[in-house]
Amino acid sequence: MDRQIIAKRIRAIRREMTKKRISCLILTKPANVTYATGFFGDDSWAAIAKARTYLLTDSRYTEQARKECPQCPIVERTGSMADAVAKLAAKLKSVRTITVEKSVSLADFEALKKHVKTRLRSAADIIEKTRSLKHPAEVAAIKASASIAAKALRQTLGHIKPGMTEIELAGMLDFQIRKSAAANSFDTIVAFGPNASRPHHQPGRKKLKQKDTVLIDFGAKYKGYCSDITRCFVLGPMTALYRKVFDVVERAQAAAIKAISPGVKLTQVDAAAREVIRSSGLPVYGHGTGHGLGLEIHELPFLKADGKGKLKAGQVITIEPGIYIPGKLGVRIEDDVLVTETGSRILTRRCPHSPFLANSSR
Amino acid sequence: MDRQIIAKRIRAIRREMTKKRISCLILTKPANVTYATGFFGDDSWAAIAKARTYLLTDSRYTEQARKECPQCPIVERTGSMADAVAKLAAKLKSVRTITVEKSVSLADFEALKKHVKTRLRSAADIIEKTRSLKHPAEVAAIKASASIAAKALRQTLGHIKPGMTEIELAGMLDFQIRKSAAANSFDTIVAFGPNASRPHHQPGRKKLKQKDTVLIDFGAKYKGYCSDITRCFVLGPMTALYRKVFDVVERAQAAAIKAISPGVKLTQVDAAAREVIRSSGLPVYGHGTGHGLGLEIHELPFLKADGKGKLKAGQVITIEPGIYIPGKLGVRIEDDVLVTETGSRILTRRCPHSPFLANSSR
Repeated sequence: MDRQIIAKRIRAIRREMTKKRISCLILTKPANVTYATGFFGDDSWAAIAKARTYLLTDSRYTEQARKECPQCPIVERTGSMADAVAKLAAKLKSVRTITVEKSVSLADFEALKKHVKTRLRSAADIIEKTRSLKHPAEVAAIKASASIAAKALRQTLGHIKPGMTEIELAGMLDFQIRKSAAANSFDTIVAFGPNASRPHHQPGRKKLKQKDTVLIDFGAKYKGYCSDITRCFVLGPMTALYRKVFDVVERAQAAAIKAISPGVKLTQVDAAAREVIRSSGLPVYGHGTGHGLGLEIHELPFLKADGKGKLKAGQVITIEPGIYIPGKLGVRIEDDVLVTETGSRILTRRCPHSPFLANSSR
Repeated sequence: MDRQIIAKRIRAIRREMTKKRISCLILTKPANVTYATGFFGDDSWAAIAKARTYLLTDSRYTEQARKECPQCPIVERTGSMADAVAKLAAKLKSVRTITVEKSVSLADFEALKKHVKTRLRSAADIIEKTRSLKHPAEVAAIKASASIAAKALRQTLGHIKPGMTEIELAGMLDFQIRKSAAANSFDTIVAFGPNASRPHHQPGRKKLKQKDTVLIDFGAKYKGYCSDITRCFVLGPMTALYRKVFDVVERAQAAAIKAISPGVKLTQVDAAAREVIRSSGLPVYGHGTGHGLGLEIHELPFLKADGKGKLKAGQVITIEPGIYIPGKLGVRIEDDVLVTETGSRILTRRCPHSPFLANSSR
């Protein structure tokens, strides 16, 4: 991300900080550190103070940090992170209270309490709230990531054949993603037949059979931004049950997407999908209907039955209802959707939709 | 892992708990949950009480949990994790204090304080200490993971040629790992030429040139267990500087491995490697000399200049000194080593060692 975008983010974060009377905020979550500094390394924290944003890292990352966040003074620590924060706090004389992200571990927070002389507080979701509203450059990055994922799936579908294992299929898809200079946004899920009834199935050595079904839940991470897509396929003709389930999930997803608009309650979108499934008499899924995505694969907002808040223009969310019948089947369909000023725009349109492999592989 | 191994682990953990007067321990770190229950899913906690170990999960994982940890009563939560712990705590009437792992986030700990009526405490490293001593079955799993990584590297080396990008090379290696039904233990690092001076370089679109050098830091994860290996290669003949650096790093690593024995201070092993580099006049690395590995890629013990404690038989650690000259080169050599009763055993012997590609690819 370029310097101007980072500067804009910092201004938005500072406005949130001012509202909450926070003068210095310590970021400990990697995605938040990346968001506020542009730094993509690990094991590093950031401190947003009045005038500047500091990056606290160690010698493994100093060279990368200088390159990725030239605007940040870099604090190269040799001791513990708590010690580095204490030293920085001692320098920032006008800061009377230091606020730490609540996502910090209890161990780290206790170490900070021990080392830092300045008063400590904690706060949740300051950066996460700012991050949930995407800049057009971020939407473009998510879309690019979705296009890479779609291309990888298209290239993989033609190679699906009986005898291959879930792991092989996942590996093939991941390799296609890598060829586009992207990474996986999470461990690819490939589930054959009844394995798909476990929403978070881990690919195994199960071999694909004639007439089997395939669920693929995957995503690319490109320039830091994630996509997240689920598709279901049949090798042979569909059974009557699978056809019914697939149709109901498709309609549930369409109903939820139709419900998306700025100002709409998160629970309303969630309920729109569930209602279609409930009225069909099929079992309603136990997971959420969707989640925000961006630098993290799961971020604000979360669309759940007990979710709080409303959709805002600029958010990017997944919509992923499913139906699971243990021992028999699982179907989930998932797309990534931008909340626009007037409704929504699907960012994953390019990804094959048809469950019939012969048609969908081209 | 089979039931008897899990039962043995629980007995070892309970001994630690008794020493620390802990009657009920809440595990929140995924690797610790896996260790104590056998469950490999995400978003789940465990509670080790007097008689039983409970798994707290949600409907996405119930089916998997029943299969992977038949010995655990499963608490299927529909609300928050804090709420699930509160309900369980209310049932466990003899428990007067609940202890939570310090790796819990501050947000989760505060939610627990709000919901749970029982008194709360926190403790660090109870499971981590137990985990650092590996059962022979765990050593075998790490060795199997190392063999998969070695095989993947051998299969990849023959394909290294000028014009390919760091990302492509990483993708090729990852695909080979996948073909062995394993996953990556972390994101593969491939660094060409001077990029290797950044110890945690992220593979990019840089193309390999004639006479270039290649650093590869990677590992497999097989049946939950990690391996971690770094190798360096040259495409053409070695420059005099690279030869000197490579030789010093090799000697530094050998010195550290030679120092390994039960009862030896962690700092002694660390110092053994650093001393070889220091006396050569080359720059001493800023990272640690090694770390434990197992269910996590980085776990106890940590071999650093300021590390505390001594090596114990049954620990598996990496030894990975390096020399980094920004703008010029980076060399790191890393192997996985078991601390035995009498000294050490290298688990990554099968992985190609020679820096010359023509020789090392077979």
